[in-house]
Amino acid sequence: MLFKRAVATCICPRIPSRLSRLRHTKPPSQYAVQRSCSSHATTKPPPIPPADHRQLGVQQELFTTSVYSPGSPILLPNGARIFNRLVEFLRRQYARYGFDEVITPTIYKKALWKKSGHLENYSDDMFTVTSTSPSRSDAAKDSEEDEYGLKPMNCPGHCLIFASHLRSYRDLPIRYADFSPLHRNEISGALSGLTRVRRFHQDDGHIFCRPSQIEEEIRKTLDFVRVVYSTFKLGPYRLTLSTRPADHYIGAPEEWETAEGALKRALDVSGQDWTINEGDGAFYGPKIDIVLRDSDGKEHQTATIQLDFQLPKRFDLGYVAPAPEYERRGETTTDPDALNETGLVTPVLIHRAVLGSVERLMALLIEHYNGAWPFWLNPRQSRMFLWAGKARRTRR
Amino acid sequence: MLFKRAVATCICPRIPSRLSRLRHTKPPSQYAVQRSCSSHATTKPPPIPPADHRQLGVQQELFTTSVYSPGSPILLPNGARIFNRLVEFLRRQYARYGFDEVITPTIYKKALWKKSGHLENYSDDMFTVTSTSPSRSDAAKDSEEDEYGLKPMNCPGHCLIFASHLRSYRDLPIRYADFSPLHRNEISGALSGLTRVRRFHQDDGHIFCRPSQIEEEIRKTLDFVRVVYSTFKLGPYRLTLSTRPADHYIGAPEEWETAEGALKRALDVSGQDWTINEGDGAFYGPKIDIVLRDSDGKEHQTATIQLDFQLPKRFDLGYVAPAPEYERRGETTTDPDALNETGLVTPVLIHRAVLGSVERLMALLIEHYNGAWPFWLNPRQSRMFLWAGKARRTRR
Repeated sequence: MLFKRAVATCICPRIPSRLSRLRHTKPPSQYAVQRSCSSHATTKPPPIPPADHRQLGVQQELFTTSVYSPGSPILLPNGARIFNRLVEFLRRQYARYGFDEVITPTIYKKALWKKSGHLENYSDDMFTVTSTSPSRSDAAKDSEEDEYGLKPMNCPGHCLIFASHLRSYRDLPIRYADFSPLHRNEISGALSGLTRVRRFHQDDGHIFCRPSQIEEEIRKTLDFVRVVYSTFKLGPYRLTLSTRPADHYIGAPEEWETAEGALKRALDVSGQDWTINEGDGAFYGPKIDIVLRDSDGKEHQTATIQLDFQLPKRFDLGYVAPAPEYERRGETTTDPDALNETGLVTPVLIHRAVLGSVERLMALLIEHYNGAWPFWLNPRQSRMFLWAGKARRTRR
Repeated sequence: MLFKRAVATCICPRIPSRLSRLRHTKPPSQYAVQRSCSSHATTKPPPIPPADHRQLGVQQELFTTSVYSPGSPILLPNGARIFNRLVEFLRRQYARYGFDEVITPTIYKKALWKKSGHLENYSDDMFTVTSTSPSRSDAAKDSEEDEYGLKPMNCPGHCLIFASHLRSYRDLPIRYADFSPLHRNEISGALSGLTRVRRFHQDDGHIFCRPSQIEEEIRKTLDFVRVVYSTFKLGPYRLTLSTRPADHYIGAPEEWETAEGALKRALDVSGQDWTINEGDGAFYGPKIDIVLRDSDGKEHQTATIQLDFQLPKRFDLGYVAPAPEYERRGETTTDPDALNETGLVTPVLIHRAVLGSVERLMALLIEHYNGAWPFWLNPRQSRMFLWAGKARRTRR
């Protein structure tokens, strides 16, 4: 930006973009300013605007956009390389944290979104999909049966996978991960770069666990978040726990208390500072948000860990466990009578994303590194430098 | 299948599925049949039905389907592992064959599909996407402007990327690869397993090259196909060249002759047998199909290499080259007058897929290996075997 301003007012030598990038990370010395444009040398360098991922994205050929698909960034080869490395990095963590990747449909019939509650609560943000030709419709009579929703979230798909088998308490926790593209219909005026988009990928994960496993799963997820953000050297971040709303909530207050207690203990064990947002939880369960502060001090909510008591009930999910009454409360017993009884218990669902939107995290990383990528993420690792030594000797 | 029939008629010891799988690869000996069910021993074992990927897919927990998204297979953890290994394997080849991966939108406005010709020629197979809520529509007045097509192919997106920069003849060939999910609206009655689907992934690639580079690019692509199919030990396959249709075609006959000549030379160099399908090319260019014969002798068209003179024209694609008249004919010149002139030349587009549909190739591999995966593709690499030696000694 400094470079562009200089060009606008006078003709001066083109500063290589690499130098302009370095200037973002370090304020330019007076000497550098004089050298680049001596007629404009002043004792006080002009203020350096913060890095902008949209500008760096163009400079480094990371992504582009098209009027034919507003809000769906096109990742160019350099951007796709970074994207793929982020995904590979997460896949390696998945092996460590016990996540199994699945590949799920992009479109589901409206009946599914009705069941999940999305049609009622989220339809404004959704796209509808239909057959272009009526001859290919699934249902000639009832057009509704041929309507799909383009998925904005992966949770209903993962619930279908959980429901596709009979599960035992021994199978739990089951942890599914998914990198599917998601679509949310943002207003066109709000669209911007990689941060406000209509199509994005989440490092989405869903943990189906026993009530007694909540604390351990949250602890592991917080550890996962710590490992990832310290690898990127992103931070500091703060953790907030949002608890049961005063009026509008589902489930018994005791269930909430147990769950919130587990979250609090996991947060304490994490060794990081955390605060409470009293009554700010979703109606279906309490949640932990990870709020990242970027180099400009701006805050971004990236990772999220949400407990959900509702969706497993909507999908009639269950697993077989002994002493189901104790199991439901997350308690154990040695009472032989209770243990002789087995029954279906609803699992707890934990929605979690560590990067959040991969595209948005890429935007944060572009600005955080200011275009100077660490080696493992650098999309231009194999650039070749030819040494001109021989040519010089010949000329001499 | 042999096992299931036996069970249906009498009670006999359960044959482990592993054994039943081995039987598919080798006809069972008379002894094996006697041992598994002595009362049914005959001198002639019953015929073994060919492996069925849908059955093996269930047995090995590779994929499932849902009524909420007919024709969109859900890849379970084991299936996703195989899918990801196939993609990783191709990515390694991309580095070798000079392909750059890009990540492109899933939905494009209808105006793009009009421009590419899909709306005119392919709309029956397409899905339409609209805002679910009218308040989120991009165009309140004209509903058409808010209509998208769910992409059935990646080529228009790759043309947009090519058009996003001014290109020089020095930049070519440019090779884009894409693993985006694609949607084609097959009739619901035709849907089956992983072979007849509505949602699938292609190892899609588009090469934008100079007319003089066609032969070299086809040669490399045929080599790519050979490397991939010999790695899977799939085959034999046969190559067919489809040439200019008698009447309905675009472009000058000389252009076709030059292109077909280049394809023939590349096929000769490949060292593999090939045949001609005279007049069977698409109206926009000649093509090479790779037809694979599976273990049952059934033929499947998997890989494809298609030359396209039309799409680059529809998208007004061009690159700057000296001596444009010669360049267009794929010829070189040393005439200084001709070389002094520079102009825009339309690149040739080569559509190519090596696996074709990744899902369909998975189906072929499931049946080809009959569930006995080679180590690198085996989704269950980390299974643990406990040795019971100590327990036995204790019992003694």
